[in-house]
Amino acid sequence: MSVSPLRRAAIVAVGSELLTPLRTDTNSLFITEQLGALGIEVVLKMVVGDRHDEIAHAVRGAMARAELVVLTGGLGPTDDDVTRDVVARVLGRQLREWPEITVSIRQRFSARGWEMPEINRRQAMVPEGAEVLPNVQGTAPGLWIETDEGVIVLLPGPPRELHPMLTRLISDKLAHRASGELLARRVLRITGRTESHTDEVVQPLYAQWASGRVPITATILAALGQIELHLTARAIARAEAEAALTGASQEVVGLLGSDVYSTDGQALEAVVGDLLVARGFRIAVAESCTGGLITSRLTDVAGSSRYVDRAIVSYSNGAKTALLGVSDTLLAEHGAVSEAVALAMANGIRDDAGVDVGVGVTGIAGPGGGTSEKPVGTVAIAVVTPDASRVRIARFMGEREHVKFQSAQGALDMLRRLLLGS
Amino acid sequence: MSVSPLRRAAIVAVGSELLTPLRTDTNSLFITEQLGALGIEVVLKMVVGDRHDEIAHAVRGAMARAELVVLTGGLGPTDDDVTRDVVARVLGRQLREWPEITVSIRQRFSARGWEMPEINRRQAMVPEGAEVLPNVQGTAPGLWIETDEGVIVLLPGPPRELHPMLTRLISDKLAHRASGELLARRVLRITGRTESHTDEVVQPLYAQWASGRVPITATILAALGQIELHLTARAIARAEAEAALTGASQEVVGLLGSDVYSTDGQALEAVVGDLLVARGFRIAVAESCTGGLITSRLTDVAGSSRYVDRAIVSYSNGAKTALLGVSDTLLAEHGAVSEAVALAMANGIRDDAGVDVGVGVTGIAGPGGGTSEKPVGTVAIAVVTPDASRVRIARFMGEREHVKFQSAQGALDMLRRLLLGS
Repeated sequence: MSVSPLRRAAIVAVGSELLTPLRTDTNSLFITEQLGALGIEVVLKMVVGDRHDEIAHAVRGAMARAELVVLTGGLGPTDDDVTRDVVARVLGRQLREWPEITVSIRQRFSARGWEMPEINRRQAMVPEGAEVLPNVQGTAPGLWIETDEGVIVLLPGPPRELHPMLTRLISDKLAHRASGELLARRVLRITGRTESHTDEVVQPLYAQWASGRVPITATILAALGQIELHLTARAIARAEAEAALTGASQEVVGLLGSDVYSTDGQALEAVVGDLLVARGFRIAVAESCTGGLITSRLTDVAGSSRYVDRAIVSYSNGAKTALLGVSDTLLAEHGAVSEAVALAMANGIRDDAGVDVGVGVTGIAGPGGGTSEKPVGTVAIAVVTPDASRVRIARFMGEREHVKFQSAQGALDMLRRLLLGS
Repeated sequence: MSVSPLRRAAIVAVGSELLTPLRTDTNSLFITEQLGALGIEVVLKMVVGDRHDEIAHAVRGAMARAELVVLTGGLGPTDDDVTRDVVARVLGRQLREWPEITVSIRQRFSARGWEMPEINRRQAMVPEGAEVLPNVQGTAPGLWIETDEGVIVLLPGPPRELHPMLTRLISDKLAHRASGELLARRVLRITGRTESHTDEVVQPLYAQWASGRVPITATILAALGQIELHLTARAIARAEAEAALTGASQEVVGLLGSDVYSTDGQALEAVVGDLLVARGFRIAVAESCTGGLITSRLTDVAGSSRYVDRAIVSYSNGAKTALLGVSDTLLAEHGAVSEAVALAMANGIRDDAGVDVGVGVTGIAGPGGGTSEKPVGTVAIAVVTPDASRVRIARFMGEREHVKFQSAQGALDMLRRLLLGS
């Protein structure tokens, strides 16, 4: 039996529903994160349906590429749950029923006043030489199987069953088999620059990071309304990896300044929330085309009731006049999508609520409503604080929901920069 | 060269960022949907990093399982874009630069006043016998390579480049190589029942569907705030497949009634929008714990300005009193999270806006703010229409964002049922 450290992992997600256009495997993200904490790198992910031959082929392929193979799903009691059987067959091991598992599943059922259906006995089948991983959230136990080449782990598909089982493995069996190194990651989030412009500025750092004492690799990615820079460090000690990542983050901030809004993966709405708390400011938001999205994002943050006072979504012009004191004259003169109206909305709600910060956003989310002068995606954004006010007209591309998101992102970022005094 | 129809596909996504905990491959969902329209079933998905050996192993594994292999990503101009090279090597074919591609890339750059960096010539390298797929959105052309066993397609990773290229292939080269059958899919969405309860009722239909003239397979899935039933039919003619799916959907609706809110994948907010339009009703929403999410979802629907008048997010008690006419007495007597206050919020905004429908939601999204009597997740939901009013207290589980989503879902579903008169 091998005792060499586990360095490379392959994840195989089993389930025909994961091969439709409607579902995607997300368990592997959690697994990747957890394994990274032990320095185990995921080098391959696969998704296969509930079919013997496909699963068998995937398991053999995974074993050829990695010492640790993690399979998820297909441990249920029904006919299409075949992961156990296939793995036993691939390894050439017999399956045997473990009576103590049958008893514990039976108890789970009887605790709810039900009788255990006979098909559930399938979940008590264990390949020779395997260890059983108890499931605190369901009937399907997990399995840990050591082979000559490494380790195969079988985990149930439902996240609430998989998470506690894996967390336990990480601190116990897997920790003992890891190399002693770990992977630490950090995400820097950036606004106000394109991907290639960011890359151009940051590029000179890459080679330096890669050859550092604690090597760091970097990946740059364009997302809607922001750029992300992902840094990964490999080291023996957590503190050492984190220190290297902090150093690298500071170098990026040195080059990009306040365009970097977060160096720890924090969302923009959380960054804005912290700035509001730091200044002791309360906020009110007047939204038109964003339809409540800005406030919904602000209130996604735990504790946001400390600074969010209210919002008004004034979808109709009538609501803009009645609730925000935007005059008919202003609307007629400038049009609903204008800097003047956005500013009047921000000032109106700020005054009414008697708070420090007012935000006003009005625009054309599309697909209808555009004109040649103000095409779909035209959005006016205004922010008023006790120190200053700012207003701008932007033009966003994409579908209705993309325009909404980018408008919200633009408003939150304008507010962030104003609160920073930049 | 083979001319047998393509029935099985494998998708290989290339990119080290897709093996981190932060990104997932989503291109494969679009590809699966498009291939399904030609009856080509995806039997395997893989994700590998930007490494020669990993990609080569994945391509060989994919070719062993499927006649059509679709690779995405790794076609850029930089050193870590190696998909072209690896595929050429696996197939034992020479790469040659196509001058006309170099010219067209050079033109793309010069149109913006830039000079083409020399590294971009890498994108003009084409394996022997390959056909080039023009890229209307970027510099990386795609490739179509016929082999003795089937077809390998290389597509760029960015969705806006991949989508038009694949759409064209589907109506052209792939259509000619497909079997003539097609896969049609339909998603039924269900509220007010658990997964197992839904399964129990629908189960008897499965065997009947599977053995029908147009066979239908079904998968049931639990999502946040709803259950989904996915139906897939395989047939020669689109009309035949759709008719079978319509028949099957009607059988489900016959059993589950108005718990099925959509039989064509429509979102709940769109279904509610259609019902409001049908009745000629306008709506105003008073939100507390949902923080604008209900209105943001309602306004995600194109054309929602026809029926959404306004919303007020009254996060502070002061805002509830000032904007919605909820009296201090009511708040003191029943507490902010109560049926009485939710109803007062719904009536208050409905009267103020002078619209037909008012919605009021107030609750504790967490993680703080819960009490033993009203724990985190306690939410009061009220809906008032010209015909009736309804109010209830619900208790939702999960994190803050899950509570917000389920509260919004609960409010929209209550409104839907009230508008249906059920």
